[in-house]
Amino acid sequence: MKKIFYPESIAIWGLSNRDNNIPRLMLENLIRWGYEGRLFGIHPKGKEKHVDGVKMYQNIKDLPQVPDLAVFLLPARLIPGTLREAGEAGVRRAAILSGGFNETGPEGEKLAEELMAVADEFGIRFVGPNGLTVANTANGLCLPFTPAFKTPSGGMSMITQSGGMGLFLWHLMADENIGLAKFASIGNKLNVSEVDCIRYFGEDPETKVICLYLESITNGRELMQAASEIDKPVIIFKSNTTNAGNKAAMSHTAAISNDEDIIDAAFERAGILRIEEFYDFISAAKAFELPPMMGNRIMVMSPAGGFTVLMADLCEKAGFEFADPGEEFYKEIAEFTNAGVIQLSNPLDLGDIYDPASTASVINLVLHNENVDGAVYVTQNPQMPRNDDVFNKMFKTDISKEVTGAIRSSGKPMAACLYGPSRTINRVKKNVNVPIFNSPESMIRIMKLQQSYYAKRKKPAFTTALPDGIDMDVANAWVASHPGTHGEETLELLEAFGIPVAANQTAATLDEAIRAAQTIGYPVVMKVMSPDAVHKSEAGGVLVGLKDEEAVKTAFATIQANLEAYKAGAQFDGVRIMAMAGDGHDMFVGGNVDDSFGPVALFGYGGIYIEVFKDAQTVLCPSNSEEITTKINRLKAAQILEGARGKARADIEGYVDLIHRVSHLLAEFPQIKELDLNPVRLLEDGSGVLALDARCRIE
Amino acid sequence: MKKIFYPESIAIWGLSNRDNNIPRLMLENLIRWGYEGRLFGIHPKGKEKHVDGVKMYQNIKDLPQVPDLAVFLLPARLIPGTLREAGEAGVRRAAILSGGFNETGPEGEKLAEELMAVADEFGIRFVGPNGLTVANTANGLCLPFTPAFKTPSGGMSMITQSGGMGLFLWHLMADENIGLAKFASIGNKLNVSEVDCIRYFGEDPETKVICLYLESITNGRELMQAASEIDKPVIIFKSNTTNAGNKAAMSHTAAISNDEDIIDAAFERAGILRIEEFYDFISAAKAFELPPMMGNRIMVMSPAGGFTVLMADLCEKAGFEFADPGEEFYKEIAEFTNAGVIQLSNPLDLGDIYDPASTASVINLVLHNENVDGAVYVTQNPQMPRNDDVFNKMFKTDISKEVTGAIRSSGKPMAACLYGPSRTINRVKKNVNVPIFNSPESMIRIMKLQQSYYAKRKKPAFTTALPDGIDMDVANAWVASHPGTHGEETLELLEAFGIPVAANQTAATLDEAIRAAQTIGYPVVMKVMSPDAVHKSEAGGVLVGLKDEEAVKTAFATIQANLEAYKAGAQFDGVRIMAMAGDGHDMFVGGNVDDSFGPVALFGYGGIYIEVFKDAQTVLCPSNSEEITTKINRLKAAQILEGARGKARADIEGYVDLIHRVSHLLAEFPQIKELDLNPVRLLEDGSGVLALDARCRIE
Repeated sequence: MKKIFYPESIAIWGLSNRDNNIPRLMLENLIRWGYEGRLFGIHPKGKEKHVDGVKMYQNIKDLPQVPDLAVFLLPARLIPGTLREAGEAGVRRAAILSGGFNETGPEGEKLAEELMAVADEFGIRFVGPNGLTVANTANGLCLPFTPAFKTPSGGMSMITQSGGMGLFLWHLMADENIGLAKFASIGNKLNVSEVDCIRYFGEDPETKVICLYLESITNGRELMQAASEIDKPVIIFKSNTTNAGNKAAMSHTAAISNDEDIIDAAFERAGILRIEEFYDFISAAKAFELPPMMGNRIMVMSPAGGFTVLMADLCEKAGFEFADPGEEFYKEIAEFTNAGVIQLSNPLDLGDIYDPASTASVINLVLHNENVDGAVYVTQNPQMPRNDDVFNKMFKTDISKEVTGAIRSSGKPMAACLYGPSRTINRVKKNVNVPIFNSPESMIRIMKLQQSYYAKRKKPAFTTALPDGIDMDVANAWVASHPGTHGEETLELLEAFGIPVAANQTAATLDEAIRAAQTIGYPVVMKVMSPDAVHKSEAGGVLVGLKDEEAVKTAFATIQANLEAYKAGAQFDGVRIMAMAGDGHDMFVGGNVDDSFGPVALFGYGGIYIEVFKDAQTVLCPSNSEEITTKINRLKAAQILEGARGKARADIEGYVDLIHRVSHLLAEFPQIKELDLNPVRLLEDGSGVLALDARCRIE
Repeated sequence: MKKIFYPESIAIWGLSNRDNNIPRLMLENLIRWGYEGRLFGIHPKGKEKHVDGVKMYQNIKDLPQVPDLAVFLLPARLIPGTLREAGEAGVRRAAILSGGFNETGPEGEKLAEELMAVADEFGIRFVGPNGLTVANTANGLCLPFTPAFKTPSGGMSMITQSGGMGLFLWHLMADENIGLAKFASIGNKLNVSEVDCIRYFGEDPETKVICLYLESITNGRELMQAASEIDKPVIIFKSNTTNAGNKAAMSHTAAISNDEDIIDAAFERAGILRIEEFYDFISAAKAFELPPMMGNRIMVMSPAGGFTVLMADLCEKAGFEFADPGEEFYKEIAEFTNAGVIQLSNPLDLGDIYDPASTASVINLVLHNENVDGAVYVTQNPQMPRNDDVFNKMFKTDISKEVTGAIRSSGKPMAACLYGPSRTINRVKKNVNVPIFNSPESMIRIMKLQQSYYAKRKKPAFTTALPDGIDMDVANAWVASHPGTHGEETLELLEAFGIPVAANQTAATLDEAIRAAQTIGYPVVMKVMSPDAVHKSEAGGVLVGLKDEEAVKTAFATIQANLEAYKAGAQFDGVRIMAMAGDGHDMFVGGNVDDSFGPVALFGYGGIYIEVFKDAQTVLCPSNSEEITTKINRLKAAQILEGARGKARADIEGYVDLIHRVSHLLAEFPQIKELDLNPVRLLEDGSGVLALDARCRIE
């Protein structure tokens, strides 16, 4: 990756002096950005000696040296052949900007395959195609082809799956005075992926914050791994979250939509920060310029009472606690007030403090108060008639030095949003060394992300271990011998994984059935076993509440008759006798395999209306008890399990253990494409958990 | 109200030439804004002849005429007395800016009462206290006391409960080139309320859009009435939605938090547009500068593919449909593309159209396409090296005239969001006659509000009529004779309102009980009647499934014995015999009386876990069938009632009728403070709806 971002020489194909030759715009960006490596121009049919002073060659072989990086913006059909020539000449890194590959249809897909084959053959790493590829403010590298002044250097590195979106953001950063470290527009990411870039930026000393715009996630586990391993905030805007969005992405960068719940679960575990609005990229970069918010207690301040109310709403919704700076603090700041008509509390209405020196003192006292972990502040610098009245002093006095001092000396963040004429705000942003936010909504949302990033960093990394009591040999054998779709015999596999299931035995004959019922204990359930009756209930193959031997006898005959009536000549393999479970709360656990994130487990409130109330949580497999417990607590049904309406608390720990085992089962056997435990009954008296029925599909 | 906004003369109390005399800042604002009415200064102890050239008087009586408007920014304790003097001198309109009244505590509350008493005595209408009061760009009236240049005139009028918030917005409007018509900072709204202002602005020819910032709603029904009656968009930001927000409001403008669901229900019915972010005020003002979006079919466009994806997500979430402009359209615009590598669809990626004239043509074709109702567009005007390359042409060419022409000639809206250096964007906003939005999120959210405003306007106004089959005499008598809390006897009241309830009869003796059971038909339920057993179940007073006369006899004795065991000497008034209802879906209907909006009804999924799943909807009483049906369809449980899992469709119309009747019952009898019908059983076979139990509290 280093050679891609720090090439010592670059060859650009297709350069010419023609009007609107787009490769030339790239060359001019390189020159404008101060790139100091050696430059070569190539044009197979070109007769020109030089373009913008750069000497032109007709063939890569004619160059006096092998360039570190080859840059292509040619029609897609020419790319595989040209890359081959470059490979033959020894080129091992490339940036391919052209569109017309797998994002366009069958023909493009074929070109994409050819391209990858050539790269494989020569061991070439390339960025693109269908992207603006890379830029680096450290060495003046700038390959995006729209004419651009050099973006100021700074700590934000950007990975984007939409080049245009990336450029918009990059221009916005310049306006917001957010410096750029490195830029990667990865397009169809046929070779270099977002994960490669994250790993590289993780080690890049220039990069402090990594921001990604993604429309699809190709290898979710690698993304998680990469983000977990580096000690920098990784902030992702993932669009393409709806059907319509999906349609746009298919025609744009061949993106495939992921399930949003899975992404949220993955990001949460990996400590990836997800944003939902475009401007939040800017807010996030700003938030990480502030000291870390090491606790959750926030102080809310504004000279406009309305903004204290608005921000208090936002802080509460975001999940902040309101700091209590104590009586002493309020007594101290009461000295600064003017008319004494505003009650002082948190949120703190500063509308009665006209002297800016007093405001600065309040901010200092707030940040140095031991019960405050951070603060948010909204004020304005409006266009006003010049005067020396109190309001001019209040709004036009620059207290940014005092504010910066309070932030730096306390080591705590105060996020400030400043309103005023764009011109003024723009100037302030460029001259003040603490970030200025654009809206209270984005500011508070993102400060919560900042705080949760540091909170998560304090916690040990996610680990999980296979639970005790698993008979892996039995499980292996069962999975190997059960390709296809299965019903309640899946309980055998679950049992091998130490999961409590309703006691059950198979019985080929009536005598066996009677013995099984005696062993299990009455009352029992009887279910037909037949490859011809996948849906047992429909085949009249499930009889419940059998109280004695007589009932078992009758049932055995009935079930056989029902099966024959359901399908003449159906194969009868006997019956399964199962214990009747006591009353309880019916939950479910399910699992499947996501294209991007692999095995995932879902769990939640069961019963016949699962789809109606959708009270479910998702974990990636394998999970651990802590993660599962946290997520069970997010279920609405958690209240029920805790013993709502005077009932006993259910065996929640037993349910956690069961989910934990399922998560390892799915992780160990990715060939289990679908698994359903439904119902999982948490007995009402709190005495345990039982899987009553299950099904699976094994590939 | 007109005299408040168009006073021909103004007297300002407390004026002086002292440094930092705040009333003088008001005077200077009036002068700066070009107010042409006559001005008087009053200072009881003042020796100054004039302030800023305005002649000073010591007493209101000395003035040569009675001023149309008296303006006070004096310490709160002086206000009632001073207002009395003004009243005696004939003043009938006042603006009271001072804080220190009911927002501060018991002493301030007393002052507030005195103030209202004086106003009542003299018939004085006043704005405030604790607000910046009023401004009017039409006549240069400007009472807010922070020095301000005149805000540009325009169609937005603003009502705010936080003066500071109002000023922030007003400055922001100037920067965004949104013109102001009138401004009212109503503070504690002890006399002039938001409703008075809405009514007045509704008739004000200058006002095109009415925006409100509220922290509390004092009289919700009047607000709804006022908003429904005027033919202008009313846009409300209601903060103070959380506990923390509430705390801030209590200490700020004595606000009392309303229940958010009730507010949403009320706003929806009244056609009030609710916004949730501060900047949305600006977006809303812009959206209503565009032609109305008369249908729901939107076209999404950007030269950045990423933005088409992002906007498609937003449009889908907002509830827009994607317009299908037809094959002909795509064929036509394909002519404009450059490399032909981008698939053309909706969302429409314009990244391959470099010629700005072509972009203008596409926009024209889009807006004039009969299958398109409106469009959204994101583009940029970045800071670029000057050149005549394609990208400079693409991004730096001004196509605003063509865009404006397409909008005006099609009569359809295209909302555009433009990125670029603040300086440039600011200049564009000031020079272009169509609005420029700041973010795609806010733009799309607000365009949906605009579209729904016009959609709602096409519908007939909300009406409702008392349903047939109500015996109002019986209901009146029942309510009058049942103060206090009641259990299932409430079914009698419901029956009088034509609500189907489970058949039931009271029986004082065993013989009566047997006869009742025979009349109703077995099986029956028996419930104890006793003032000493409010919770019947706890008293062993509910026995179900009584199958025959024998069972009724035994039950009658058991219930009596249980009651005596529950409370020795308890009064036994007999039993209620009720029919056993068939199986079904248990829903609920509840009602209570909101301080601000009066009687409201709630309904939704019942059963023992109502509080867990909170699947409920709210309507104000009385409601009508259409509104109730719409809201039932929003319940998750709607799927269940429609017949999920192969069951029959429930009698949804019966449930609608039942809720409709309950809503009229609550509206007719506001003394019913609480009402609960739980369960309301929708029989599984679709054969009807029955209220099985009910309780109420009547004051």
